[in-house]
Amino acid sequence: MRFRHDPHHDGSPDHVTFHEHHARLRVRVPGGADGVYLRVVEDGEARLVETEVEAERDGVVVYGVDLPLLPVVTPYRFAIIRDRRYTWLNQEGPHDHEVTDDGDFRILEAPNPPSWVTGTSVYQVFPDRFARDDDGVEPPTEHPEWALPRSWDDEPAGFGPLAPREYFGGTLEGVRRRLEHLVELGVEVLYMTPFFPAGSTHRYDASSFDEVDPWLGGDAALSRLIERARELGLRVMGDLTTNHTGDRHEWFLAARADADSPEAGFYHFVDHPDDYVSWLGVRSLPKLDHTDPGLRERMYEADDSVLLARLVGEDALDGWRIDVANMTGRLGALDINHEVSGRIAERVREVAPQAWLLGEHFYDAGPDTRHDGWHGVMNYAGFTRPVWAWLNTGPEGVRYAATHTSAPLPSQGAVETVRALRATNAGMPWRVRTHSVNALSTHDSARFRTAVGDPLLQILGVAAQATLPGVPFVFAGDEIGLTGRDGENSRTPMPWHRPETWDREVFEAHRRLLALRRELPALREGGLRWLDAGEHHMTFLRTLGEQVVLAHLTDGAHGPTSATATDLGLREATVMESVGEVEVSFDDGVELSARGPGLVIAVGSRDGL
Amino acid sequence: MRFRHDPHHDGSPDHVTFHEHHARLRVRVPGGADGVYLRVVEDGEARLVETEVEAERDGVVVYGVDLPLLPVVTPYRFAIIRDRRYTWLNQEGPHDHEVTDDGDFRILEAPNPPSWVTGTSVYQVFPDRFARDDDGVEPPTEHPEWALPRSWDDEPAGFGPLAPREYFGGTLEGVRRRLEHLVELGVEVLYMTPFFPAGSTHRYDASSFDEVDPWLGGDAALSRLIERARELGLRVMGDLTTNHTGDRHEWFLAARADADSPEAGFYHFVDHPDDYVSWLGVRSLPKLDHTDPGLRERMYEADDSVLLARLVGEDALDGWRIDVANMTGRLGALDINHEVSGRIAERVREVAPQAWLLGEHFYDAGPDTRHDGWHGVMNYAGFTRPVWAWLNTGPEGVRYAATHTSAPLPSQGAVETVRALRATNAGMPWRVRTHSVNALSTHDSARFRTAVGDPLLQILGVAAQATLPGVPFVFAGDEIGLTGRDGENSRTPMPWHRPETWDREVFEAHRRLLALRRELPALREGGLRWLDAGEHHMTFLRTLGEQVVLAHLTDGAHGPTSATATDLGLREATVMESVGEVEVSFDDGVELSARGPGLVIAVGSRDGL
Repeated sequence: MRFRHDPHHDGSPDHVTFHEHHARLRVRVPGGADGVYLRVVEDGEARLVETEVEAERDGVVVYGVDLPLLPVVTPYRFAIIRDRRYTWLNQEGPHDHEVTDDGDFRILEAPNPPSWVTGTSVYQVFPDRFARDDDGVEPPTEHPEWALPRSWDDEPAGFGPLAPREYFGGTLEGVRRRLEHLVELGVEVLYMTPFFPAGSTHRYDASSFDEVDPWLGGDAALSRLIERARELGLRVMGDLTTNHTGDRHEWFLAARADADSPEAGFYHFVDHPDDYVSWLGVRSLPKLDHTDPGLRERMYEADDSVLLARLVGEDALDGWRIDVANMTGRLGALDINHEVSGRIAERVREVAPQAWLLGEHFYDAGPDTRHDGWHGVMNYAGFTRPVWAWLNTGPEGVRYAATHTSAPLPSQGAVETVRALRATNAGMPWRVRTHSVNALSTHDSARFRTAVGDPLLQILGVAAQATLPGVPFVFAGDEIGLTGRDGENSRTPMPWHRPETWDREVFEAHRRLLALRRELPALREGGLRWLDAGEHHMTFLRTLGEQVVLAHLTDGAHGPTSATATDLGLREATVMESVGEVEVSFDDGVELSARGPGLVIAVGSRDGL
Repeated sequence: MRFRHDPHHDGSPDHVTFHEHHARLRVRVPGGADGVYLRVVEDGEARLVETEVEAERDGVVVYGVDLPLLPVVTPYRFAIIRDRRYTWLNQEGPHDHEVTDDGDFRILEAPNPPSWVTGTSVYQVFPDRFARDDDGVEPPTEHPEWALPRSWDDEPAGFGPLAPREYFGGTLEGVRRRLEHLVELGVEVLYMTPFFPAGSTHRYDASSFDEVDPWLGGDAALSRLIERARELGLRVMGDLTTNHTGDRHEWFLAARADADSPEAGFYHFVDHPDDYVSWLGVRSLPKLDHTDPGLRERMYEADDSVLLARLVGEDALDGWRIDVANMTGRLGALDINHEVSGRIAERVREVAPQAWLLGEHFYDAGPDTRHDGWHGVMNYAGFTRPVWAWLNTGPEGVRYAATHTSAPLPSQGAVETVRALRATNAGMPWRVRTHSVNALSTHDSARFRTAVGDPLLQILGVAAQATLPGVPFVFAGDEIGLTGRDGENSRTPMPWHRPETWDREVFEAHRRLLALRRELPALREGGLRWLDAGEHHMTFLRTLGEQVVLAHLTDGAHGPTSATATDLGLREATVMESVGEVEVSFDDGVELSARGPGLVIAVGSRDGL
């Protein structure tokens, strides 16, 4: 499927420049058109605005138009007209027929998220499994009452009642001691799953928000960890559940003890004290009621609220990943999800404008991101799942995520993957996509390595992280080839004491690809223009100003595919990364072929869109 | 493009049956699959549910599953899995890649709209232009001060300052005298554009909501009209603007006179009294502020409010068309559109449960129809515009709707039209689509006849109205071939005194096609399954229980296209309507070809999905 002659626009700086009350938009139209119109929707009413020719070279015409910016969000798309046939260009791509507004390009009028986010990369640590205070391997002799102590060498259980009780004894001091590993890898943000006291090793069932779990080392350990991270140039993010607490949480205990307590209003009691709404019916996770002003005050309104207090001061976190962001404030007919995320964003901006708010979203996050709310999401729908569907080999018993369905892992070719990437990201404003994370694995999924079964295919996935829009996100252990068949079994302790088991090829590929993304502005903040896709390969450009990065990824052999210098807009090109069996030649354009899986990333310069 | 082997589901009774707390869903999968899963989203969280085989015949497998119904709306789609390849089936059709949730099937939990709506058809009358008290032709000697009297034979002006002042002198008594025309045509609802006093002939700038315009005959004339309509078995709908009033409205005069008056809160004053928000900046149409409780009370909360009062009593209206429904309650960052439509729907259900609420929507209405609000919309985006783009011949100076853009009328083939029909209706719950109207022309558009320039192409459009889901909507005069180049010039007086000018062929086609829709339950309430589309032709089935209707429409010659008896599910078929140059033969299936524009509608019976 060839995209090279398609008209193109995206939210990147070459296509959208901001002025005081409007944005200047540019759209690239190979071959030109009889007319190009901007369609904008204001207060539910659409109108067309004619564009003008801004530039033309080698038959590629660039049209420009001023878009007055609306409060909150400005949705738009383009009509490209030839012989009265309309091509509608929205964020998904061009369509030869009318479409709904869901895939419109969208500019958010809310203040920009922290400027450091688009250039960064995230390393996820599950505190119980990353590193101990010392390098002991035996089951911990001291542990919480509910815990089942495990040796550092044990394989974590898979899904089942045992998994959340398995206690390996990792601590924040352990994390601190191993921070150089992150520096060596080249990631810039340490994100830890919850560190509050709880009744499980995943700690999403918080029993208090007032302190760091003493079993992890308490507040002092977190402070020391953050101090050391700062010295190393790393940022640190926490993980907060706004949707529920644990049933041993001090708020919930107070709520159950007294129906008239302030805390009783924090939860959705059906019949006090024993019948209450909980996350997916799991009784240990009672759901919070954000219509309650008292809850809001304690959670995110007050300066000393749970969410705000840890974003200020010397040992401030650099942001929060918000657990179950998609369900927060939603219960049947009640839906104040946008109100809650909007208010949190507002308060965070007032108190800690450099903090990143990252919402967990397993599904279509588009409609939840079109307002002043989470800066970005965990883009499972728009990255993880399409890449898995492309590269996984369907090993027995492996589940994509924490789902109990009997449905098999999806499998699709590269061309369907490109269609999926275009479709699933179409509904999200460009700015949100670039402030979202692209994960291959997380603590909620099987390990990507297990799904693909092969280091080269894993490296292809890492290359997709490094080259597609969004922030690369590495689940600790993926970079050394750890495996795991589901979202519990994958919470593997880091084998610091068994360096001979590390996959050094995969580690080095992570290092190189993350470094490449850091070095090339077009990868960090550039536009995305698709060139080609087939059963096995996908080829695209990332562009910013004069810089063009060509990325070609394939999971199998394919015949020659080429693009002209005009298609590319390239003057010259240098191959920066080449893995596997791809052949590339640049000669007034590019020709690519492959004898097996592999990738090429090249960088060049250009004169215009 | 062939759709016949596609998996199929829609919101019709064969595919969705309602039980107390759940719906039983059925999906038709030619060739079967390794597995078929239902995907449902609850509180922002998606899950998969396995379906089971319900029936199988001739290789067509029907899968069934129970869907628990959620408050407000239940969104779902299907995953059809073969060799680990997922086909996602949503309301737009099947996709070989992941999609956003926008096109999900959706079941509304709100109580059903009035039961009479799906079987009906609407006839739109612009009161000033339909008929006078007598059959006089000369310019009216008595008229409002602002009016420019016109002869009944004059051609209305096109867009410009003159148009709204041209006064032809039609009245409600005139409408009453001509009601037999509606009966002869076979329409069942008379819908009149506003009858309140105003400062223009379109009367969307109401100066009062307390009485019917005396120039139209006042309240007495409306009562007599409704009484006669009842005798003839007709229903009557009015037209109310919730978005704005006229600047001569008594509320606005009171508001401007006194910044402390209750009415001052009804509007959005920027700087009282001279600077206020108005519809698209037209100062004679000040915008209403629905955050004001006083406005709500007077508009739709109180039993004697504008909206409710006329829905009860002996001379009650059967519903309202809501003008500018898409903009109501929206102004920049303020958006309470759903709250307003939801509350109006609730109050109407309490006071007049048999009244129909029809919102004006020129654009993507999907997101505004997924709650308990308007029962249906004027489906410009999902019917009018696609059919225009298919059949118009691009005459000079003709504008689709009231838009001042220089963009040409879109032109597309039948296959792009089918894609447009599927895409633009995907975001609207099936129930809303079937309670929405399909117009070819309205008082806001050029005449469809002028756009297509030919009686046969006009009849093709009428056939689309009669055969596609939704309520046929005829702008008075279309049925006799009247013309008009824009939304003002098209407001043509009905030439009662010049019967020789009537296009009898088009009138008879309207009669036959509307009758066919009344007679065939599958056309009124059946599912829609696409079979085929090409540059010129489209072929589809409407299905309900044992009844199958085959519709084939083409705007030009095409070679043979066929479908097997299995594709159709048909046992036998009878041609009910045939116009133009289509050849059809049924012989263990169907074969269709055409030497030019034309249509065939046939009816048959079947044994199952």
